[in-house]
Amino acid sequence: MANSRFEYVRSFERENYLLPDTWIVIRVDGRGFHRFSDRYNFEKPNDLRALTLMNESAKVVMRDITDVILAYGDSDEYSFVLRKQCQLFERRESKLISTFVSTFTAAYNQLWSVHMGPDAPLDVGHMPTFDSRAVVYPSDKILRDYLSWRQADCHINNLYNTTFWALVLKGNQTRTAAALRLKDTFSKDKNEILFSEFGINYNNEPEIFKKGTILLRVTKDVTLKNPQDLSERQLQREEKKLKKAEIQELHIDLIGDDFWNERPWILNN
Amino acid sequence: MANSRFEYVRSFERENYLLPDTWIVIRVDGRGFHRFSDRYNFEKPNDLRALTLMNESAKVVMRDITDVILAYGDSDEYSFVLRKQCQLFERRESKLISTFVSTFTAAYNQLWSVHMGPDAPLDVGHMPTFDSRAVVYPSDKILRDYLSWRQADCHINNLYNTTFWALVLKGNQTRTAAALRLKDTFSKDKNEILFSEFGINYNNEPEIFKKGTILLRVTKDVTLKNPQDLSERQLQREEKKLKKAEIQELHIDLIGDDFWNERPWILNN
Amino acid sequence: MANSRFEYVRSFERENYLLPDTWIVIRVDGRGFHRFSDRYNFEKPNDLRALTLMNESAKVVMRDITDVILAYGDSDEYSFVLRKQCQLFERRESKLISTFVSTFTAAYNQLWSVHMGPDAPLDVGHMPTFDSRAVVYPSDKILRDYLSWRQADCHINNLYNTTFWALVLKGNQTRTAAALRLKDTFSKDKNEILFSEFGINYNNEPEIFKKGTILLRVTKDVTLKNPQDLSERQLQREEKKLKKAEIQELHIDLIGDDFWNERPWILNN
Amino acid sequence: MANSRFEYVRSFERENYLLPDTWIVIRVDGRGFHRFSDRYNFEKPNDLRALTLMNESAKVVMRDITDVILAYGDSDEYSFVLRKQCQLFERRESKLISTFVSTFTAAYNQLWSVHMGPDAPLDVGHMPTFDSRAVVYPSDKILRDYLSWRQADCHINNLYNTTFWALVLKGNQTRTAAALRLKDTFSKDKNEILFSEFGINYNNEPEIFKKGTILLRVTKDVTLKNPQDLSERQLQREEKKLKKAEIQELHIDLIGDDFWNERPWILNN
Repeated sequence: MANSRFEYVRSFERENYLLPDTWIVIRVDGRGFHRFSDRYNFEKPNDLRALTLMNESAKVVMRDITDVILAYGDSDEYSFVLRKQCQLFERRESKLISTFVSTFTAAYNQLWSVHMGPDAPLDVGHMPTFDSRAVVYPSDKILRDYLSWRQADCHINNLYNTTFWALVLKGNQTRTAAALRLKDTFSKDKNEILFSEFGINYNNEPEIFKKGTILLRVTKDVTLKNPQDLSERQLQREEKKLKKAEIQELHIDLIGDDFWNERPWILNN
Repeated sequence: MANSRFEYVRSFERENYLLPDTWIVIRVDGRGFHRFSDRYNFEKPNDLRALTLMNESAKVVMRDITDVILAYGDSDEYSFVLRKQCQLFERRESKLISTFVSTFTAAYNQLWSVHMGPDAPLDVGHMPTFDSRAVVYPSDKILRDYLSWRQADCHINNLYNTTFWALVLKGNQTRTAAALRLKDTFSKDKNEILFSEFGINYNNEPEIFKKGTILLRVTKDVTLKNPQDLSERQLQREEKKLKKAEIQELHIDLIGDDFWNERPWILNN
Repeated sequence: MANSRFEYVRSFERENYLLPDTWIVIRVDGRGFHRFSDRYNFEKPNDLRALTLMNESAKVVMRDITDVILAYGDSDEYSFVLRKQCQLFERRESKLISTFVSTFTAAYNQLWSVHMGPDAPLDVGHMPTFDSRAVVYPSDKILRDYLSWRQADCHINNLYNTTFWALVLKGNQTRTAAALRLKDTFSKDKNEILFSEFGINYNNEPEIFKKGTILLRVTKDVTLKNPQDLSERQLQREEKKLKKAEIQELHIDLIGDDFWNERPWILNN
Repeated sequence: MANSRFEYVRSFERENYLLPDTWIVIRVDGRGFHRFSDRYNFEKPNDLRALTLMNESAKVVMRDITDVILAYGDSDEYSFVLRKQCQLFERRESKLISTFVSTFTAAYNQLWSVHMGPDAPLDVGHMPTFDSRAVVYPSDKILRDYLSWRQADCHINNLYNTTFWALVLKGNQTRTAAALRLKDTFSKDKNEILFSEFGINYNNEPEIFKKGTILLRVTKDVTLKNPQDLSERQLQREEKKLKKAEIQELHIDLIGDDFWNERPWILNN
């Protein structure tokens, strides 16, 4: 068949192999979720059902791809951390980012009605979709700083949103007026508005809103050795355990040292 | 807030901007669809419902992303051709491949029950997912050769599958025996088996199976000029027309010159 | 020997294979030549010996690397055009740019005393060095535009420098005053200054200053077919002819069509 | 001037910014030095003048580019280690590899007659040229393994070459016979040949042949802080000291821990 005469086009394909022995983070981000959340009437400032849907979708990814050692998510984004020794898809960037985002998207769409209820059917013209990117980090310190960056960002956004929506929903201000009021304010100003005008103590807000969600496998008896040091059979057994491992959901600080000191196996894997 | 002290991690992000003035093809591929199609009892060798589901999902992508000028699909894969002048996401590779695969995945999951019927509900542990890649082609000739490669591949696979499943389903052979029988055979051998043993004239098989599916927008009155030559308002008007344009489904040869001669606007856009 | 235990470090090496079937241009640029030309007393605004040295160095590169089909240079830079089908070093970017710049540098250093005379010996602390980059261009038109860009740049710079140095050397102005005088002037203003104040008709300036230098091989009897279509022996014979071919030096316009129409083999190779 | 109409070609240029906070190694390699060393009658198996020429050329590079913290070379190759925080040329790969190879080439050509003597004038048709590549290593351990790899390679090659040339020059064997004799031999076999047949104790061979050359700056009073933590003036003062610092030449083991333990500032810079 004439296929061979066209097959040369393969030579135009390029692969980016992510640098070995570095932490890979794949971050999945909602596309146009501002408008999307309006359309489907997400509760403001936080919709617990939608956050649960994000978390459950991330768990599907984590169960499917056992190289993920930790995931962190908030709002409409999720970061998946792959261990340094990860050889999944030979560390090919396209394969990694497309597989993660596709699995996440499929889960989010499938689990939508479970978590959002039957009253909010999805419209094919306005489906939840995501983009994704891969970044490599050469050291444990920088990986921690990446996760700290996302958690600090979660807090900053949540404090802003909590105050903004208090002004709008409880203070009956227009969105424009609320935005104007918050322009150039500091954290303490927002805390003050919340407390003095709406009787809200920000510290008492739910941890899942303030800290986001950390997902970890409960894998006491899994060795997580370098795959190259394991026999084929050991690998399969380990893989099986990882697939079945319970996934733990935490809403705690990961910026300080405590989180890491109590779980040394994360960085030492 | 302490965010700034972590923000340096952004400097680790890298972008690959695809070479300007080249055709971009984004190919979406089913992950593990061999097993997936078994699990959900796809008809063999071709399941018309599943092909329709692929085509309808591709149309959702095409309606969403108007830079797609042509799409070609068969089996569990779809190639989306973006015009040379495309500036979508500044031609950033990660953004492009993740957005396409996410949109395709969402559509496929949402449309599943519409096309596969209510009797085949998806199981979250076994969802349809896809990967994707982007490739750039520097000339019209090479783009055509790429599409010819995929269509020739469709034919080769379909002839094989048609014969294989005739041997299995009508000839009552085991899968192993059928594979062995077909090893090292040429096209004419397979045609002969089909005709003499099963009375099947391969030429009479449905065109969608033999040729795959070409998707084109019916855009008589859209200029498709270089975006840089259009005013903001003209751009919006053009975009609107493209979004509403009917999408045509063809199952015809695109290897020969006729297809292209009859539609000069595809390459001249 | 223990080498194998360290050999894994090879897996950190990455190669960028330049996109096939595109024009490759490798541009070599002088490092800090402003100061360098001061140190070695280059004549201003143009030093014919230094330009000759650049041209002769480029010829050494062209004789060494027969994939170069055309070279263009002016001032302290040279662009080498490699034909689309070029497979040199499998089109690996690092190998290409380092080999070109090293060969050019070696030639420039070796030929220095030949062209600059024995009175200007090079000092190891202040040697002529260059950097380089590779860029691919997908079409003939864009390649021509690239070369036009460099030639237009040559003219712009030369007109400026000719006027600047006339003001300084003949008009006895300080460099600062001359620069100030030329700020925001158009071409016609500079032509006017040259003519009315110094009696210089810019059009009569030497072509090598105004147009730069084009290098071409005189290769009437070399086929320049796609290497894949030639036998090993034909390749060697072709290579031999190319190595021996005379290299022609032109100082003419390449922006208009004439240059290309008269030499159709350049783009059709 | 019409330059602007061509300036769009700049958009085809791509930059690869090497990953931050990783060790950069730039390795310069002789092109065709096997044949080159024959042409210029290098002494076999090692030509001390040629090694000195390599070392002196590397010192020119090191004096010019103060981000180099250590260099290691043997035979016709040199590896330059840039500290993790290096921001030279914004870590642009093309700029880095071309600048290093050009500076090395210029130095090697200029210093040729100084070290090789006036009897071996270079011929422009057969000049010494080099290629180069950049590789990043994410951790101190992997950087050390890289350098160990090169030093182990030096030893392996030197033992082979010493034995090979003893067989040829002292044993009067043909090159083919000598190669055949050494095929599949181990280190101890080569040591045995040297000792029993030629009375050579390999251990007594010069260290520069067995270990290669390590170049280090003597920089007791230079802080080598992160450039971002220094004022402009501090930076300039530090740079000045680095430029003037004496460069030390060592021919010692760097595979074991001693080298590193005695010089903790190399990895801690």
